[in-house]
Amino acid sequence: MDFSASERTRDISERVKAFFDAELLPRHREWANWVGTQAGSPPWLDGLRDKARQLGLWNLALADLAIDEPGTRLSNQEFGAAAETMGRLPWASEVFNCHAPDTPNMITLQHAGTPEQKAQWLRPLLEGRIRSAFAMTEPAVGSSDATNLQFSMRRDGQDYVLNGSKWYCSGASHPRCRFLIVMGATDPAAARNQRHSAVIVPSDTPGLKIVRDLRFMGLQNPTSAASQLEFSDVRVPVSNLLGQEGQGFKVAQTRLGPARIHHCMRALGSAEVLIELMMARASERQTFGRVLADYDTVQRWIAESRIEVEQARLLVQRAAWLLDRDGHAGAWRDVSIIKVVVPRMVQGIADRAVQVFGAMGGSDDTPIHSIFAHMRAMRIADGPDEVHLRQIFRMENKPGWSVADSPYNTPFEV
Amino acid sequence: MDFSASERTRDISERVKAFFDAELLPRHREWANWVGTQAGSPPWLDGLRDKARQLGLWNLALADLAIDEPGTRLSNQEFGAAAETMGRLPWASEVFNCHAPDTPNMITLQHAGTPEQKAQWLRPLLEGRIRSAFAMTEPAVGSSDATNLQFSMRRDGQDYVLNGSKWYCSGASHPRCRFLIVMGATDPAAARNQRHSAVIVPSDTPGLKIVRDLRFMGLQNPTSAASQLEFSDVRVPVSNLLGQEGQGFKVAQTRLGPARIHHCMRALGSAEVLIELMMARASERQTFGRVLADYDTVQRWIAESRIEVEQARLLVQRAAWLLDRDGHAGAWRDVSIIKVVVPRMVQGIADRAVQVFGAMGGSDDTPIHSIFAHMRAMRIADGPDEVHLRQIFRMENKPGWSVADSPYNTPFEV
Amino acid sequence: MDFSASERTRDISERVKAFFDAELLPRHREWANWVGTQAGSPPWLDGLRDKARQLGLWNLALADLAIDEPGTRLSNQEFGAAAETMGRLPWASEVFNCHAPDTPNMITLQHAGTPEQKAQWLRPLLEGRIRSAFAMTEPAVGSSDATNLQFSMRRDGQDYVLNGSKWYCSGASHPRCRFLIVMGATDPAAARNQRHSAVIVPSDTPGLKIVRDLRFMGLQNPTSAASQLEFSDVRVPVSNLLGQEGQGFKVAQTRLGPARIHHCMRALGSAEVLIELMMARASERQTFGRVLADYDTVQRWIAESRIEVEQARLLVQRAAWLLDRDGHAGAWRDVSIIKVVVPRMVQGIADRAVQVFGAMGGSDDTPIHSIFAHMRAMRIADGPDEVHLRQIFRMENKPGWSVADSPYNTPFEV
Amino acid sequence: MDFSASERTRDISERVKAFFDAELLPRHREWANWVGTQAGSPPWLDGLRDKARQLGLWNLALADLAIDEPGTRLSNQEFGAAAETMGRLPWASEVFNCHAPDTPNMITLQHAGTPEQKAQWLRPLLEGRIRSAFAMTEPAVGSSDATNLQFSMRRDGQDYVLNGSKWYCSGASHPRCRFLIVMGATDPAAARNQRHSAVIVPSDTPGLKIVRDLRFMGLQNPTSAASQLEFSDVRVPVSNLLGQEGQGFKVAQTRLGPARIHHCMRALGSAEVLIELMMARASERQTFGRVLADYDTVQRWIAESRIEVEQARLLVQRAAWLLDRDGHAGAWRDVSIIKVVVPRMVQGIADRAVQVFGAMGGSDDTPIHSIFAHMRAMRIADGPDEVHLRQIFRMENKPGWSVADSPYNTPFEV
Repeated sequence: MDFSASERTRDISERVKAFFDAELLPRHREWANWVGTQAGSPPWLDGLRDKARQLGLWNLALADLAIDEPGTRLSNQEFGAAAETMGRLPWASEVFNCHAPDTPNMITLQHAGTPEQKAQWLRPLLEGRIRSAFAMTEPAVGSSDATNLQFSMRRDGQDYVLNGSKWYCSGASHPRCRFLIVMGATDPAAARNQRHSAVIVPSDTPGLKIVRDLRFMGLQNPTSAASQLEFSDVRVPVSNLLGQEGQGFKVAQTRLGPARIHHCMRALGSAEVLIELMMARASERQTFGRVLADYDTVQRWIAESRIEVEQARLLVQRAAWLLDRDGHAGAWRDVSIIKVVVPRMVQGIADRAVQVFGAMGGSDDTPIHSIFAHMRAMRIADGPDEVHLRQIFRMENKPGWSVADSPYNTPFEV
Repeated sequence: MDFSASERTRDISERVKAFFDAELLPRHREWANWVGTQAGSPPWLDGLRDKARQLGLWNLALADLAIDEPGTRLSNQEFGAAAETMGRLPWASEVFNCHAPDTPNMITLQHAGTPEQKAQWLRPLLEGRIRSAFAMTEPAVGSSDATNLQFSMRRDGQDYVLNGSKWYCSGASHPRCRFLIVMGATDPAAARNQRHSAVIVPSDTPGLKIVRDLRFMGLQNPTSAASQLEFSDVRVPVSNLLGQEGQGFKVAQTRLGPARIHHCMRALGSAEVLIELMMARASERQTFGRVLADYDTVQRWIAESRIEVEQARLLVQRAAWLLDRDGHAGAWRDVSIIKVVVPRMVQGIADRAVQVFGAMGGSDDTPIHSIFAHMRAMRIADGPDEVHLRQIFRMENKPGWSVADSPYNTPFEV
Repeated sequence: MDFSASERTRDISERVKAFFDAELLPRHREWANWVGTQAGSPPWLDGLRDKARQLGLWNLALADLAIDEPGTRLSNQEFGAAAETMGRLPWASEVFNCHAPDTPNMITLQHAGTPEQKAQWLRPLLEGRIRSAFAMTEPAVGSSDATNLQFSMRRDGQDYVLNGSKWYCSGASHPRCRFLIVMGATDPAAARNQRHSAVIVPSDTPGLKIVRDLRFMGLQNPTSAASQLEFSDVRVPVSNLLGQEGQGFKVAQTRLGPARIHHCMRALGSAEVLIELMMARASERQTFGRVLADYDTVQRWIAESRIEVEQARLLVQRAAWLLDRDGHAGAWRDVSIIKVVVPRMVQGIADRAVQVFGAMGGSDDTPIHSIFAHMRAMRIADGPDEVHLRQIFRMENKPGWSVADSPYNTPFEV
Repeated sequence: MDFSASERTRDISERVKAFFDAELLPRHREWANWVGTQAGSPPWLDGLRDKARQLGLWNLALADLAIDEPGTRLSNQEFGAAAETMGRLPWASEVFNCHAPDTPNMITLQHAGTPEQKAQWLRPLLEGRIRSAFAMTEPAVGSSDATNLQFSMRRDGQDYVLNGSKWYCSGASHPRCRFLIVMGATDPAAARNQRHSAVIVPSDTPGLKIVRDLRFMGLQNPTSAASQLEFSDVRVPVSNLLGQEGQGFKVAQTRLGPARIHHCMRALGSAEVLIELMMARASERQTFGRVLADYDTVQRWIAESRIEVEQARLLVQRAAWLLDRDGHAGAWRDVSIIKVVVPRMVQGIADRAVQVFGAMGGSDDTPIHSIFAHMRAMRIADGPDEVHLRQIFRMENKPGWSVADSPYNTPFEV
């Protein structure tokens, strides 16, 4: 194993970091002020996006770009360090056109889209001209078992007619959102794994209504709100089907690996911010005659956070390396592992950070709550920890011996 | 020990429960809808408060009422079961005039107030005609060490002139709030324990400005918002001093025991709501062919929650019993113990509840986030866990032997 | 609730404590030296037992004594404080004839024994003249589900013929052991709950062989070793049946409540010893210029230990109170709760104690390992934590509403 | 980063694994039987060692071999996979001459030894003809702060005269042990870091007495017992000094990195054995109508174990890679990290394994207790977790901003 970063990784991550430090970080308070008081993004954001694109820092999260598609052509692993930097601010990914759910939607379209679908929906996403959304979770059923999905997509002539509710659909209420990828049941009577399909639904289709934007643990995501949607006889042409009918999960699968890995990479970046905040606070605050940094409880919290981040980062890097090398199947277990490890770990660091900060730690003056709530959501989104733990268990091998015969056991000889 | 509830405890708690079930619970959605869309409390709340008072369910949290003061004269322990019921909804305590910070402020006035102060400020609180606030925490210093407080209360003739910032001051922005009890430094040059005093500041005193209402972990407390305050040359007469100058902590101390115990009692009530919610969800939701209640992980979460609630409740009851019997000094260690145990425990149950619920668990459609955020705040408010753990440690006795001589050790005889 | 100890409890526990301090504790090193080098108990132990009996400190753990049976007639709750004192040394219970498995065996005989069985086996146990053993766990099956037991007890005329293996049978190899209570299948074809019976097997019955004494996590229990037994055509008369054939679990049930509660009481005593040891060590040892007691990590360990002990003790006391008042059925849930809480809690304190002590903490010079191993075993013995957690879950009530209708939920009104 | 194993790593680890499977594993019960009943190693062990050496599988843990020294010249990282295999059995390292404390002693001699010392002590160790020991920890002082060491090494003419006690000195009582490296104070009045020296003490030096072999959490290490030693006027010539007088910690430092890393590698191997044992047991045992592997609690335990092992292994590999590339200074933080992570993690897995196994899990019939106790010792040996956590904290950088100015904060603009 070689733990040094490649030349290319270093180069890209340094350039992203330099741009981040020079152009994004100084504008963060301005950004926060804007999104705290009005909808959409501040108008100067487009300028930053143009600049990033001109610098070649664009679509860094897409490992498989066609010859004419704009982007850096980084592998998932090479994206790692840059992704961590982007994870330091909630809106940084967007500047580099690396944000969810657009990136996973682009990946889905790359793999399952027809040439027409690509021209109409993928191209403008790649160019950063529009936004998109992904609608899967339903309020009525335990959606962590995706085969439970009840959302109806009835075939009617050359159309699908969509009826049902979705929620925690991220991106749908963004002013530039032009389409949604929606998962639903095209054949409720089929076998559980062949029941569901994915279709493209333009945002302005009649019958589609955004009921409300939702919070999660008190956080309304300012870059990509989670919405509740009602579909009443929403009609889309059959040509909007992604992949084959009944193969919705297969279509969705291509996005899962990269999406989860990139989420984890960004989460590591936010964890680094938390550690920096704790270090600063602990050095400044004094109680009972000592700065907090002199209490070994605080030292331990920070050291444990460091440990956890280091080991999680190696796991994430390896999952990315496996995905790049062996594809979905080869990386499956490791993607589940990081999906379990990273969010709960960063949630724990955020909880420690609250305690180090005191009252301010729970306020909106620091990013702690925002990171916390985001991580808490990640422990459910894309499959709750429990589903992934079961997957991990199932990929464990049984040894070739029974306990009684185990060569490692030394039973008493009567 | 006798673990059965007294006749009086049972009677009161049953009557509170009956009133809660009949009059409060059915109005909760209405209440939530109101506070989600406009300031203050719904107009029908006053009617409920009148009803409660007529039923003799009023001021149940005040163990020491003077002969002419209205209330039930329950001991802290007897209040326990009723307080749990009130903790089931964020606004229930208010109906029975048992809410913070008014109750702790009443206790402070009962112990430290002059007859004039009592007539002017305590009486209308007891009658439920006004609201009040308590201002202690400062943004600029680590306030968990109260001797750090820098807020200036300079004596000038027959006035104190107040300057400085406070935040997470609960109740100040309530439309009916008429005064604040403010902690500050009257003699910054004195010994750390004699530097601070408590004074009454009428809400409409010139120079006092509410800067903003704060959230904690995404929660803006709808019954008693936490505010940030600026004091610029705020003048109050010396007669507004509570207790003696320089004895602010002594004045504050009387409120700490009951306030913390009542908080914990209410927290137990909210924990019971969480367990009920988990039980209901686990019985209804299905994944991979089984209801959640058939997964032993879910069973374990609920069983561990039950265990934690049961043992915490006994601790809380004992702390109340000690406070009733032996006063502040006798209950000191046990109050610290429950202050550590209860909030983190209920926070943990809320975290489990999110996982059982899935997406809805983080939404505002359930009380889970609200309970979670409240508990997280409690781990900092009134002293962070770490300060209480140190207190508990310090009250531990050293045995009369050294390790070498310990009769429990069996050193090798060479 | 009244948390003060009764007069009787205080009196007994003070007398036990005085005797313990004066007569047992000073002899502990002598005892340890004896059992470390030879079998059985030191010869002076019988003298101590006589003394204890003369002082009326005898059979304190038997709540239901017949009119002519010797003992103090304490309720389970009243036994609590005395039991904690006994738990401070591994051999103290024996001095007061309160040790397992003899006490649970006596309880079993009290409830299920015929007059003849009582005369032959119960009476000498009550007098402390003999020892006994209890054989349930089998190496071949998961015995935490007792209906799995395969041990064969075939009826043959007026005899049962016993065949099979048992292990972790405590007490069988004690030189004074005169009989075992053995659980086995008298009717393997019956319904799972009617398959098993309990019979008395005299220690010297031909065909019964003690294969070896076992250790658990490195500990060989010096007061009541855990043995592996082989039964080959061991014959006992049908009159040795305890209770009715096929009702073995019912017979065993009477012992479970008191046995588990007393184990937990003693465990609390050992936890107090660990806290004392940590306090002593932390006050004496110095690293990097400070005594360990000045590190807040160590303070926290001790404070958390104190918290855990206090809350567990209240639970244990309540379980005892419930058992005394409502019998087995009423105390069932609470016995499961303490069975889960106490051993893992004390195991955790022991783990902390090792860390406070450093190298000595793992040695045999302190009781830490012995307590640790004993607690670790208790998490399996009498049902593993997992079985009890499931019991606790099952006794949880479902609320009368579904999540959708829950009055505590506030769903969005579309 | 490249997570694939090098050709060389794969080759060596496969050859070690093949030899292990063919020659060691089948003899484990025989080995266990021998060491359970008599001192030293079974006579056939030397034959295995010869075979291993002939196969070139010898001294694999020594990264810096001189030109004429026998061994494989693997880097620390390359040793990783082979070390894990060796960690699967307590005696496997010895077969390949890679066991502690001989390997760390060899490293110490390589770096600090004079040519004469190397000829006399290093060469026979390299050849596997003798054994050695390392004596540092003292019963009287908190040895986790090494500057506390009081052991006296008084210079007297051309000799040092040694007096004092050591304990948990591993290897001293092995029949082939020929010398000890002993740490002590040559100049107690010097600055704390210049007080101590390391000297070689031949095992048969008059005045050196092995008081006893010690257990740790019930385990007496059968391959390298931990002894308590008394030194009474033990004289060694000044030429036995290792490195310079007063530079004892510097001399010891060279061994720390490799020793800790190799310990962690072996610990990972033992964790894999535990997982295999749990998988086997969970597949075979049945309770309440299901095999244990069908309970999601058991699935979770195994999955969490897998996660923990995977992330710890990556950390260990990176620490080795850093040590190989950047030496002691560059790997310092990461060595502390794995020192904290690995032992407590494997201890936790062992605790789970006990629970999966039930009674057998605590017995000596499985390796669970032995692994558990070894891991528990590792959390203290070579510096307790707390010391390493402090080191890790100290290597954390403070950010260049204060909290008030942090670009990540968004304070309210008044």
